[in-house]
Amino acid sequence: MAETEYVVQQSDLREFITNCMTQVGACPEHADTLAQNLLAADYRGHYSHGLNRLGMYMADIEQNMVETKGEPKILKQTVSTGLVDGNNLQGPVVGKFCMELAIQKAKETGIGWVTARHSNHFGIAGWYSMMALEHNLIGMAYCNTSPCMVPTRARKKVLGTNPISVAAPANNDDNFVLDMATTPVALGKVEIKHVMGQPIPPTWGVDNQGQVTTDPKAVYLEDGGLLPLGGTEETGGYKGYGLGMMVEVFCGILSGANFGSNIRHWSSHSEISNLGQCFVALDPSVFAPGFTDRMSDLMDHCRNLQPAEGSAGPVQVAGDPERQHVKKCDELGGIPYPAQQLAVADGLAKKCGVEPIKRLKAL
Amino acid sequence: MAETEYVVQQSDLREFITNCMTQVGACPEHADTLAQNLLAADYRGHYSHGLNRLGMYMADIEQNMVETKGEPKILKQTVSTGLVDGNNLQGPVVGKFCMELAIQKAKETGIGWVTARHSNHFGIAGWYSMMALEHNLIGMAYCNTSPCMVPTRARKKVLGTNPISVAAPANNDDNFVLDMATTPVALGKVEIKHVMGQPIPPTWGVDNQGQVTTDPKAVYLEDGGLLPLGGTEETGGYKGYGLGMMVEVFCGILSGANFGSNIRHWSSHSEISNLGQCFVALDPSVFAPGFTDRMSDLMDHCRNLQPAEGSAGPVQVAGDPERQHVKKCDELGGIPYPAQQLAVADGLAKKCGVEPIKRLKAL
Repeated sequence: MAETEYVVQQSDLREFITNCMTQVGACPEHADTLAQNLLAADYRGHYSHGLNRLGMYMADIEQNMVETKGEPKILKQTVSTGLVDGNNLQGPVVGKFCMELAIQKAKETGIGWVTARHSNHFGIAGWYSMMALEHNLIGMAYCNTSPCMVPTRARKKVLGTNPISVAAPANNDDNFVLDMATTPVALGKVEIKHVMGQPIPPTWGVDNQGQVTTDPKAVYLEDGGLLPLGGTEETGGYKGYGLGMMVEVFCGILSGANFGSNIRHWSSHSEISNLGQCFVALDPSVFAPGFTDRMSDLMDHCRNLQPAEGSAGPVQVAGDPERQHVKKCDELGGIPYPAQQLAVADGLAKKCGVEPIKRLKAL
Repeated sequence: MAETEYVVQQSDLREFITNCMTQVGACPEHADTLAQNLLAADYRGHYSHGLNRLGMYMADIEQNMVETKGEPKILKQTVSTGLVDGNNLQGPVVGKFCMELAIQKAKETGIGWVTARHSNHFGIAGWYSMMALEHNLIGMAYCNTSPCMVPTRARKKVLGTNPISVAAPANNDDNFVLDMATTPVALGKVEIKHVMGQPIPPTWGVDNQGQVTTDPKAVYLEDGGLLPLGGTEETGGYKGYGLGMMVEVFCGILSGANFGSNIRHWSSHSEISNLGQCFVALDPSVFAPGFTDRMSDLMDHCRNLQPAEGSAGPVQVAGDPERQHVKKCDELGGIPYPAQQLAVADGLAKKCGVEPIKRLKAL
């Protein structure tokens, strides 16, 4: 029998997260920014990056690893670029500040390229790139993360999942939203396979000797790591490794933040993370007219392709799976969560004296 | 017995290519730009994109598909962006013009983002991104190409190999140079497997029904196509598909060039190609001081990692294989070519009345 699911209204979720965060010490405005970010992840179906991570964000504040007030500071800027000190504030607070700066510059000169140091986990990269869509701009966001990817030929983790997000507007509120790790999957998917006692495909990870393995435990718990996107050297994994390093160039290297294996361990709260992030806004209107027409044309062309026999569904473009999930939530009147996940969140809330999460209805 | 190889001096190669191109009608300056581009590809070990393609560039001119004189034109610009009409000139002529424009803007505002339409095949993307290195800038180049990649779940080619190149300077003339297709391999590698009668790995391509195949013929000759980087849907191929579309956004969609399946077939010379390209220069000095130190630190950290048992060699970073080939050429006093490849080039030269290629020595 499937586990019971409950629907939670977005406003209730936002209030719940904000309450938990302010209770551990975050200022209300920052708490609300984080709440919007986590909510957006779950709404788009990226449950790994939403409410699921509330405990991590709370722990960072409880253990004084993240600043609870103040604002990011522009250290250096040109008409089109900016270097921002995140002042060790919450990632979404820093990222929102930077993306707004990039958008402002893009409106003035066609492009804004902003990097931040002294930032923290910023949630889903797509939240930032999509901020540009509201201004009819292309948005991009990049972030370095804790080491979990083993470079091609190596046996030790150096780079993180280092995500790339690029959002571009199309006609009628349609859009292209790429939001991807530069590893084949997130580490969370390996964890799930481990919990379910299933092997992983031989393209996901290596053990601590750098050998491809189908044992999730070897990757996840015994100091192995993820392969880069593309898998092994023979199947083009060095490209994913190169992309991961490109993201690091844009983030830690450009901003002067921690980078590569200097970044703290994923689950550590014993030192500040000093992550590097990069935000870009680009105005299509300074290039050829008709951008959104062409964007819609290409996307619809792909969507209308005949699917291969046995394919998992219709041909999609980046952003379509998330669009489906958003539609599902809108029809439900909120975001569906497994009972178990809500119970975990309620546990966190109880510890800090916050009311349990409100369930709209059971499914 | 291995086929004889001959070493050709770079100056002789440059003269040879220039002669062939001017003989079919290119103006000397444009012919020389193409020669430098093809030469750079072979020098860096990317033989697929060098002298090997001379015949294609000659055919484009002989069949009046490419303009032989004039120069690209800036249609629109801001202090940090530019839209360029390539006027259907040779790709390297357009690309060099655009990259120089991007570099100039980056020196003034920290960043230059330039897109071109009405361009043609521009050779290796790394030639453009690396132009920025001479100015201590980060360089990027993107290009759309003829359809050869089948989107995840589909059975028909839509996007090209759509390369991404990002070059970043490090200390002591060291550098990071990512130069990669967003497919697992170039179509040329499938062709080679076909010629050698070998199967391809099950992560490279699909047949014309969208089914993964190990038969190079099905991919290469029977209307199949390459998978995106990452392979099938299960192994993360939708990410490579998304990256290929991101490149198309930067190129055909932003510039108003042909895009996706509107682009002419790879071997076609029956219509102009109207390719879209994108060139970016970014000045690290407008961000945190010490960029090259951090870049060297990360690259050397990776290079010094203990390789996995059975790995094909030491751990490398993007640009290292090319660096090795450059070093080999420098030691040889020129670029080594198989006798057969030089014979093909001589055949092209003979048809247009140019002296055969000068061999410095046999290996």
